[in-house]
Amino acid sequence: MSKFWSSVVNNLKPYTPGEQPKVPGLIKLNTNEHCLPPSTEAMAALGNVSSEALRRYPDPESTALRRAIANAEGLSEGQVFVGNGSDEVLAHIFQGLLSSNDSLVAPDITYSFYPVWAALYGLELKTEALLADFTIDVNRLLQHPESILLANPNAPTGRALTLAEIKRLVDSNPDRLVVVDEAYYGFGADSASSLLTEAENLIVTRSLSKSHALAGLRVGYALGSAELIEGLTRVKDSFNSYPLDACAQSVATAAIEDTQWLSRSSALVTENRDRLTQDLRDLGFEVCPSLANFIFVQHPQHEGRDLFEYLRAKNILVRRWDKKPIANFLRITVGTHEECSALVQCLKERCAP
Amino acid sequence: MSKFWSSVVNNLKPYTPGEQPKVPGLIKLNTNEHCLPPSTEAMAALGNVSSEALRRYPDPESTALRRAIANAEGLSEGQVFVGNGSDEVLAHIFQGLLSSNDSLVAPDITYSFYPVWAALYGLELKTEALLADFTIDVNRLLQHPESILLANPNAPTGRALTLAEIKRLVDSNPDRLVVVDEAYYGFGADSASSLLTEAENLIVTRSLSKSHALAGLRVGYALGSAELIEGLTRVKDSFNSYPLDACAQSVATAAIEDTQWLSRSSALVTENRDRLTQDLRDLGFEVCPSLANFIFVQHPQHEGRDLFEYLRAKNILVRRWDKKPIANFLRITVGTHEECSALVQCLKERCAP
Repeated sequence: MSKFWSSVVNNLKPYTPGEQPKVPGLIKLNTNEHCLPPSTEAMAALGNVSSEALRRYPDPESTALRRAIANAEGLSEGQVFVGNGSDEVLAHIFQGLLSSNDSLVAPDITYSFYPVWAALYGLELKTEALLADFTIDVNRLLQHPESILLANPNAPTGRALTLAEIKRLVDSNPDRLVVVDEAYYGFGADSASSLLTEAENLIVTRSLSKSHALAGLRVGYALGSAELIEGLTRVKDSFNSYPLDACAQSVATAAIEDTQWLSRSSALVTENRDRLTQDLRDLGFEVCPSLANFIFVQHPQHEGRDLFEYLRAKNILVRRWDKKPIANFLRITVGTHEECSALVQCLKERCAP
Repeated sequence: MSKFWSSVVNNLKPYTPGEQPKVPGLIKLNTNEHCLPPSTEAMAALGNVSSEALRRYPDPESTALRRAIANAEGLSEGQVFVGNGSDEVLAHIFQGLLSSNDSLVAPDITYSFYPVWAALYGLELKTEALLADFTIDVNRLLQHPESILLANPNAPTGRALTLAEIKRLVDSNPDRLVVVDEAYYGFGADSASSLLTEAENLIVTRSLSKSHALAGLRVGYALGSAELIEGLTRVKDSFNSYPLDACAQSVATAAIEDTQWLSRSSALVTENRDRLTQDLRDLGFEVCPSLANFIFVQHPQHEGRDLFEYLRAKNILVRRWDKKPIANFLRITVGTHEECSALVQCLKERCAP
C-alpha cells in the first residue's frame, strides 16, 4: 500500500499468468505454447534485424505487418489493428469500445483476464453460465442487451461455437458490439473473420502466441470495420505510439506470410490432440471436445488436485483452477508426440482401471 | 466516428510522433535517435535469441533486465519497473499513481504526450510557464500542492535542472509525488536516482531509446520506492502481463550491462553537441544550453518555418512545433560528425552574415 496508489490500483485484482518455472527436464503443458518451433522464415527475419533497425524508432503504424495480415484475411489494412500481444489489444478494446456502455456480458467460465480489464476500466461484467457440457449458451447471451465478449474456442474448455452461432449473436442486434477472442485460432475452430465483410458490430482478436508458436514475441491483432479500428488506433496513439518493436514487426510479418507453416503445424497439433484425447478417454478421463491446442479433462475416480500434484511430482506441469465448477478439471496443453506419450504413460500408472 | 467509440475515444487528441519518412539519403535529425549504432554486446544478444525463446512466453517479470538495471543504479530489483518504452511506463504512472489526485502540474512547454495521458486518464493538467530563457521555474512549481511531472532535461528545450533543484521539489512536500522523466539520461544532466535511497515520493523514468541507441527496441523503466513500483506492477498485471518480448529483454539486459558503451558513446554525443552549438552560434543562432542529444535553436534574422522548409528541401529533417512561444525554434538532433557538418554547411549558405 502507498498513499500514492490510485483508487484503481487499490481495487485491482491483477491477473495471474501460468507459471514459467525453469526446472530442468520439465514437461511444460501449462501455458498452451505451440509444441513446434516457429517458422524458419520467422527466425530468418529475426536474424536480419539490423543495428540500424534498433537504433531508429520502429514504424508506429506497423504498416508491413498490418498489410500482411490484411492480405491473409482478404481485408484492407485499415481493418487491422496490431498490439503488444492480444492482451494489450483486448485492453484497448475494453477502454476504447466496450466502455461506450456501462456493462458487457460474457460466459462465466472463460479467460480470467476479462474481469480484470472490466475492473481496470470501470465496467460491470455480467456473466452467463455455460451449459452442463461447457458449451456457451447462445440463447441466454441473446437475452442481454449488452455487448458480448467471448473466447472462441473458449478458455479453458476448448469448446467452440460454430460460425452460424457467432453470426446469430452478431445479427441479433446491430447496436451491440460482439468481440470474439480467437486466441486459439488455427486449430480447427471456425473463425468469425468472414463475417467482417458485412458486420459493423464485430471485432475479432487473434494472437501469434499459439497459432504461430511466437508467445515470446508478444504480437496480437484485431480485425474489424475501419471505424472500429480507428477507435482502437486513437486509444493506442494516446497510450503508446510504438507498441511493436522492430524485431516483433519483422518476425511477425514473416510468420504471417509463411502460410504453409501454419497449415502444416496446425495439422500436427490437431493430430496430437486427437490422439491424446483418445488415449486419455481410454484411461477413463472425460475429455471436453477441443478445437484448441489444449484439452480440458477430468477423471471420475480421481480428484483434479491430486492428479495435478501427482503430475507435478513427475515433472509434468499442467494447469488447474481451484474454483467451482472446474476445480476437478485439468487443462493440458497439446505437446509434442513425445510429451503427450510421457503424460499418458504417467497417468496410466495412476489411473489405469 | 462510430457509435461504439467510448467517450474517452471521442474526446482524445492523440499524440503525433515525429515523422519517419523513408527518403534515400535523408539526414534525419528530427526524432532524437542516438547517432551511433547500439552496443555490439546488445546486437550479439539479439543474435542469441533462440526459436525456443520465441516459442515460450517470456519472463513476465523481466527479472534479468530488472536485476541489471538495479545493479547499475545501486537499487534493489523491487525498485525497478520495466515497460514497453518509457511511454508505456509513464502511462501506467498516470493511471496508477498520479490518478491518486485529480490534478497534477507540469511546465507548459514540455513533452507533448503529457496532456494526452492526462486526458486519457481524466486528470487535470495544470501548467506553469517556463522562464524567458526556457528554464523551468522551480519557485512557481512549488506554489502548487499537486504532484509534479517534469522532463529533465526538458523537451524540447534541452535545458536541465540541477540535482539540488530536483531535491528542493522532492523535499518540499512528502505528500506530493514528483515524477522526473529522464528520457534524455546520459548526456550530461544530473539524474535524480541518487535521491531514491531516501525519497519515498519520487519516481524517475528512463528510456533506452536515446541513451542506448535502442529506439527500435521499445524498452523503458521506472525507479522508485518498492511501494510505488508495486503499484505500477499491479497496473501492468491488470493490463498486459508480458509487456517485454524475449528479444527486448535479452537485448536490453546486454545493453545495460555494457556500461563502457554508454560512457564512450555519451562522450561522443556531448562532443558533437558542443561543436554543433558553437558552429550554429557562429552563424548567429541562439542556442538553448542543452544537456540532451538535441539542441533547440532560433535565428534572429530567419523564421523557424522558413529554415525548416529550407532544410527539408535540402534533405535534412529537423523538428518544429507551430505554436507559441516556440514557433520560431527548431529542435535538431545531435547527429554524427558528418551529419552535423552537412547541416552546418547548409545553414551557412542560408544564414551566414
